[in-house]
Amino acid sequence: RASSDRLWHDIHSTAKYGIGERYGNHPHQTGLSRLTLTEHDKQARDWFAKTARSLGCTVEIDSIGNVFAIRPGLNNNVPATFVGSHLDSQPTGGRFDGVLGVCAGIEMLRVLNDNWIETEGPVGVVNWTNEEGARFPVSMMGSGVWSGTISQEEVSHLKEVNVLPGQQEKKTLEEELNNIQYLGANPAPLNQGGIPMAGHFELHIEQGPRLITSGQQIAAVNGVQAYKWFNVKLTGRACHTGTTPFQYRIDPLLSAAKIIAQVHNTATKHNGLASVGIINAEPGSINTVPSQVSFSLDIRHETDAGLDQLIAEIRRDFWNEQYLAQRGRRTATTLQYDITEIFSSPAAHFDEVAVSIVEESAKDITGDSNIQRMISGAGHDSVNTSKQCSTAMVFVPCKDGISHHPEEWAEQEDCAAGTDVIIHSVLKFDKM
Amino acid sequence: RASSDRLWHDIHSTAKYGIGERYGNHPHQTGLSRLTLTEHDKQARDWFAKTARSLGCTVEIDSIGNVFAIRPGLNNNVPATFVGSHLDSQPTGGRFDGVLGVCAGIEMLRVLNDNWIETEGPVGVVNWTNEEGARFPVSMMGSGVWSGTISQEEVSHLKEVNVLPGQQEKKTLEEELNNIQYLGANPAPLNQGGIPMAGHFELHIEQGPRLITSGQQIAAVNGVQAYKWFNVKLTGRACHTGTTPFQYRIDPLLSAAKIIAQVHNTATKHNGLASVGIINAEPGSINTVPSQVSFSLDIRHETDAGLDQLIAEIRRDFWNEQYLAQRGRRTATTLQYDITEIFSSPAAHFDEVAVSIVEESAKDITGDSNIQRMISGAGHDSVNTSKQCSTAMVFVPCKDGISHHPEEWAEQEDCAAGTDVIIHSVLKFDKM
Ligand SMILES: NC(=O)NCCC(=O)O
Ligand SMILES: NC(=O)NCCC(=O)O
Repeated sequence: RASSDRLWHDIHSTAKYGIGERYGNHPHQTGLSRLTLTEHDKQARDWFAKTARSLGCTVEIDSIGNVFAIRPGLNNNVPATFVGSHLDSQPTGGRFDGVLGVCAGIEMLRVLNDNWIETEGPVGVVNWTNEEGARFPVSMMGSGVWSGTISQEEVSHLKEVNVLPGQQEKKTLEEELNNIQYLGANPAPLNQGGIPMAGHFELHIEQGPRLITSGQQIAAVNGVQAYKWFNVKLTGRACHTGTTPFQYRIDPLLSAAKIIAQVHNTATKHNGLASVGIINAEPGSINTVPSQVSFSLDIRHETDAGLDQLIAEIRRDFWNEQYLAQRGRRTATTLQYDITEIFSSPAAHFDEVAVSIVEESAKDITGDSNIQRMISGAGHDSVNTSKQCSTAMVFVPCKDGISHHPEEWAEQEDCAAGTDVIIHSVLKFDKM
Repeated sequence: RASSDRLWHDIHSTAKYGIGERYGNHPHQTGLSRLTLTEHDKQARDWFAKTARSLGCTVEIDSIGNVFAIRPGLNNNVPATFVGSHLDSQPTGGRFDGVLGVCAGIEMLRVLNDNWIETEGPVGVVNWTNEEGARFPVSMMGSGVWSGTISQEEVSHLKEVNVLPGQQEKKTLEEELNNIQYLGANPAPLNQGGIPMAGHFELHIEQGPRLITSGQQIAAVNGVQAYKWFNVKLTGRACHTGTTPFQYRIDPLLSAAKIIAQVHNTATKHNGLASVGIINAEPGSINTVPSQVSFSLDIRHETDAGLDQLIAEIRRDFWNEQYLAQRGRRTATTLQYDITEIFSSPAAHFDEVAVSIVEESAKDITGDSNIQRMISGAGHDSVNTSKQCSTAMVFVPCKDGISHHPEEWAEQEDCAAGTDVIIHSVLKFDKM
């Protein structure tokens, strides 16, 4: 059994590496602001590597900065069974998203050591790079490069989405990997000598309202919905806000507004999700109608086919607005748009054996009625590991279903129960 | 008569102080990017002061950075008659907006000198600070402080609207006035010892399509429409784009989109204008629904009463969206909004005597049928001077009615004709 207090201490004591917005007086009432490959991310990584070494692990860093801690077993000629998640956060994220899963892995190491448990094969804990995709816009990046779905060359030159304060321009992923000294020598891709895995078990907060609503403690996650990210650029023509009658304008921000409202309706109709998180207007002056507007589009659906249909209709929404923006206009300029796919994660289906192991372990710990199976709305590194090894996930409830927010919160007993499920699952899997 | 070539040379040779976006191969085919109180603005100001001194003027700088060049007349105990406009530009502005008016003033000085003309009273040229309001969000600022409609204390602490590249944070107006060394000793406000004016004549491109459409060369401007600027802030709640069903979201960007589209319809209905030039979403991450969205709102109407009615209905649009955003929601959070007025310029009506002088001068130069009277859609420093002295404006056509855009363009002969109208108007007014 996990020590609930030790786990809780790890979660909150590491929050100092990128302390976020304060929302209450209790010392734990701040969010986490730990964008990947920043100085704060380096501090969290250093804590992880040091702690794992002190618990008897060897630590390997690969070429995309993934950090693997491995505890030897009886037979070390087989790949390790890993517990993994990520230590990076959203710009204004919470204390649990990712961190809980890594701390559960550290807690597993302690439980094994305290009980003098020797596993059949080695077991490990992995901290994946840039799971969030919040700074460099590819989510689950480290596990993606490891599994071979994402090319290291392509993402190396990826630029961050915002210029951070004090910088002259956007940094690339490679510059920042170098800068925090986590560009490891070991090639990341599994098929080029990456660290092999027998299995991957991940504990995470649900990040949505289903467990909280049903009053259950554990979800055995058997898959993840499909999603794609796009950069959208709308180009019109800058003009004076005071002298230019509406018929003489091609206003890309007005068109963006109409499209954003329409895309929401289209996603609702298709039972999918569509969200805009970033928007910028150029040149950015109160009395100039923008020349160009760019925004992000995050589109999700439970099935790959459903996602394709939704995206096709969203493309028609753009086409439609382009047509309408021209109607009655006294200008030769037309609204131009460009929709570029920047990231795609097809629907994932986890290994039934691993999911059953999670379910069985959960039954022992929390009882039958406290468990449900669930498809995850969010992407997780387990999506990528599931392509290469047995993978399953455990969700625990989070307050009000809120995540990617400073007030994201999970109860101590739920975190501990989830960790127990993970430890038991790893031990069962290791036995097989 | 103005030398059309000399005038043209001034306009284009000074464009090197803040060269803008290139849009064609001809050396003149770039825009102008000269935000107020930047290094480039300093260079343009230095050129202005040096040139005016070389033409026999004394130069005074006041506490808001306005630069007054004065050429003595026969009787120097009376205030000077000024030609004035501004040398600052939009972030991606054109070569004529403001610059034409200042260069017309410099050309007037040359014509007077070349022809050994002694005026009754002194005449002058003034370069007003921050007419655009594009960097510090108060337009016609220098003339506003001079006329007493804007308080110097209030604007001193105003911050720029965007953090410029390489900066850690936003600078204040006072810091930047100091930085370029244009914080003059002379108090700016007229009633506190500011530079007195007998009259103010301003040449400007129309910035809209009316002259181009009618095929006329000159407008005698007899007033300016009313406008107000607002900062709008919409607060919702950040959450995960992949796990949060729509009914659990309070998405301030979706609400902003609906409001922006609706405000456009409301302005159309009221025969007014409403425009959004700046928009920002926090925290700015692809997979986080924003917690907060802020945008600018520029609202205009020909009459003060019409503007008030339009704004009242726009406020109802916000209220309405706040109500609709709550419908069917499974969350206690509600959409919050804050609409702060940051600038107001009531409708201006110029002195009939000064407008008639412009009209008479224009008739001599370009003929009756080439002239119309016009209300300006844009604000100009003449709005503020008209509260303190006889004021009138001259508009010349600009290509496609386009302004606040790098491709803003006026023909050489139209610029010269406008300058002739200004010179004749000043001489007629000086005689009175
Ligand atoms: N768990 C999580 O927040 N992952 C980020 C990737 C996504 O957007 O789903
Ligand atoms: N002329 C001009 O562009 N003035 C800026 C103030 C305004 O927005 O009308």
